[in-house]
Amino acid sequence: MKKHNFYAGPSILPQTTIEKTAEAIINFAGTGLSVMEVSHRSKEFVAVVDEATALFKELLNIPDNYSVLFLGGGASTQFAMVPFNLFIKKAAYLNTGAWSKKAIKEAQMFGEVDVVASSDDKNFSYIPKGYTIPKDADYFHVTTNNTIYGTEIKYDIDSPIPLVADMSSDIFSRPIDISKYVIIYGGAQKNLAPAGVTFVIIRNDILGKVKHHLPTMLNYQTHIDKESMFNTPPVVPIFAALQTLRWLKEKGGIEEMYKINVKKAGLLYSEIERNSLFKVTVEAEEDRSLMNICFVMTEGNEDKEKAFFEFATSKGMVGIKGHRSVGGFRASTYNALPIESVAALVETMKDFETQNK
Amino acid sequence: MKKHNFYAGPSILPQTTIEKTAEAIINFAGTGLSVMEVSHRSKEFVAVVDEATALFKELLNIPDNYSVLFLGGGASTQFAMVPFNLFIKKAAYLNTGAWSKKAIKEAQMFGEVDVVASSDDKNFSYIPKGYTIPKDADYFHVTTNNTIYGTEIKYDIDSPIPLVADMSSDIFSRPIDISKYVIIYGGAQKNLAPAGVTFVIIRNDILGKVKHHLPTMLNYQTHIDKESMFNTPPVVPIFAALQTLRWLKEKGGIEEMYKINVKKAGLLYSEIERNSLFKVTVEAEEDRSLMNICFVMTEGNEDKEKAFFEFATSKGMVGIKGHRSVGGFRASTYNALPIESVAALVETMKDFETQNK
Repeated sequence: MKKHNFYAGPSILPQTTIEKTAEAIINFAGTGLSVMEVSHRSKEFVAVVDEATALFKELLNIPDNYSVLFLGGGASTQFAMVPFNLFIKKAAYLNTGAWSKKAIKEAQMFGEVDVVASSDDKNFSYIPKGYTIPKDADYFHVTTNNTIYGTEIKYDIDSPIPLVADMSSDIFSRPIDISKYVIIYGGAQKNLAPAGVTFVIIRNDILGKVKHHLPTMLNYQTHIDKESMFNTPPVVPIFAALQTLRWLKEKGGIEEMYKINVKKAGLLYSEIERNSLFKVTVEAEEDRSLMNICFVMTEGNEDKEKAFFEFATSKGMVGIKGHRSVGGFRASTYNALPIESVAALVETMKDFETQNK
Repeated sequence: MKKHNFYAGPSILPQTTIEKTAEAIINFAGTGLSVMEVSHRSKEFVAVVDEATALFKELLNIPDNYSVLFLGGGASTQFAMVPFNLFIKKAAYLNTGAWSKKAIKEAQMFGEVDVVASSDDKNFSYIPKGYTIPKDADYFHVTTNNTIYGTEIKYDIDSPIPLVADMSSDIFSRPIDISKYVIIYGGAQKNLAPAGVTFVIIRNDILGKVKHHLPTMLNYQTHIDKESMFNTPPVVPIFAALQTLRWLKEKGGIEEMYKINVKKAGLLYSEIERNSLFKVTVEAEEDRSLMNICFVMTEGNEDKEKAFFEFATSKGMVGIKGHRSVGGFRASTYNALPIESVAALVETMKDFETQNK
């Protein structure tokens, strides 16, 4: 049976990324060796890092005064790296959920953190608006997409101070004006590659201002100077990332991907709103994520949750259980998820409604 | 032509690790999905981490009061994590080369570091002896195998203070008495898995004594509490590590591996000593690495270096160029390198000598 992969992360990757990576695990670039057992300084692997960096810049239209880094580990390390590199006297953060809270916690080790607004009063089911970004803070940090709650900041914020964004789960899903940010970072395991590599887009002139000691590996300058090759990088995730970037370019780039994402999300949100058994957890349409669509049973139908989960599983749906802090269901519709999978889920929801009438 | 992979790292992995990983990239544990696109919290992937942890403990005979962690990123991050977690007033380090120096540099950010001995007077071509470990230091740090210079501490040091070892390039190559160490760490990309995961063996009671702030991701306790699943771990490197651990067990474990390693290294060191064109860079036999065998041309034959490199390359030898700071050649003979590859290199050296007589 065809599986429809709605996992929130690690999550679906393009079929070509999977096939090309499997091939390179056996024979990489005609070397007769696995990509896992070739020096990262071999000309074959250096070519992978160079092309991945160039494509990253091309696809996102990144200005020349920015660097793109591929670092080992996950975005959680960035929660500390950002203040290590930028915190002087005060930082500002927007609290939109569990990942924002983790980022705030790390910044608080460095001093005063101004949480400008929070949506925790309604279990993070909306994006706060109308807040004021303090002009005297060193930077303002946001989490653009909140996988757990299904909310997303789908626009580039105008910030009077340097803007930092965790885009782990929505990078490459919509066009971004990079020049509005000083740092964009994210774990790769949604729209890019398997877990184990983190991308960082950084404006070069923002560094070198802090006075405290910086551990070498936590200093962005270390990795900028060595073009992501200060230490041995995670070779397989970077190789896979390159395949996804090539696929993105072939598919028409980010503008095209955005159109498809709007269509996919529209299809599913419409069905949830139409279907008498389900409702979207995020009320305001402008706050609804294009990547993670959260929904629960309507009032009076809560007892059908388990039955729907089992019915959907029997139809090949994988990874649709909602996060425990929201409950219900979550369908993640990342770039690599084909519209056919969304259509299959919509069909499943319709069938379930008919059966339960 | 058959390739003989002598890369220093990333380096040769068992054929079964390569094949099983390629298979799982296509279809993981019968899920019909790639191991790259399945949630790390799925029961299938949790089983991978659990078995890898259990086998790690079994193979190295790790006592119950230790934890085994698989962390994202490389060993370079450990250079900072060790002092973050253990440094109170003073640390002691042995300087045996480039990696030791990097570890020392990170510790110096925390305060006084006593470098008890160094072999930098002879380009790190020997292991210092007869030094005194200060009893008032918080811990003593050593790099057991020095890939660049071909030296190795092939015994477990008796230390009056907590002993920490970077075993990136010799873990699983010889039996170790774990109880003599409080922390053993290493990048996976020599004897275990592709780059992107770092293992840490840690005695649980050594933590919780420092007073300074610890970034969450740099706190070993974070990862002990969450059994390496605090954040999304590097799934492909961990899956590959499990395959290598199974292979190690099937091959008879570490005792058996050690016997083969002694035989492989013996074969190559004997030929270098016999052959009039080559000499080992590490004089004392007790200091010679079983994992990285460094050799240069003998006096008067320096002009034949390039010719030998080309001849060896034509015979299928890959990755035998010595590190630029030592020159000449380096043959890395990690666990997965078959004795046939060592024999092929020996044959190549003999043929080259005959041709140049």
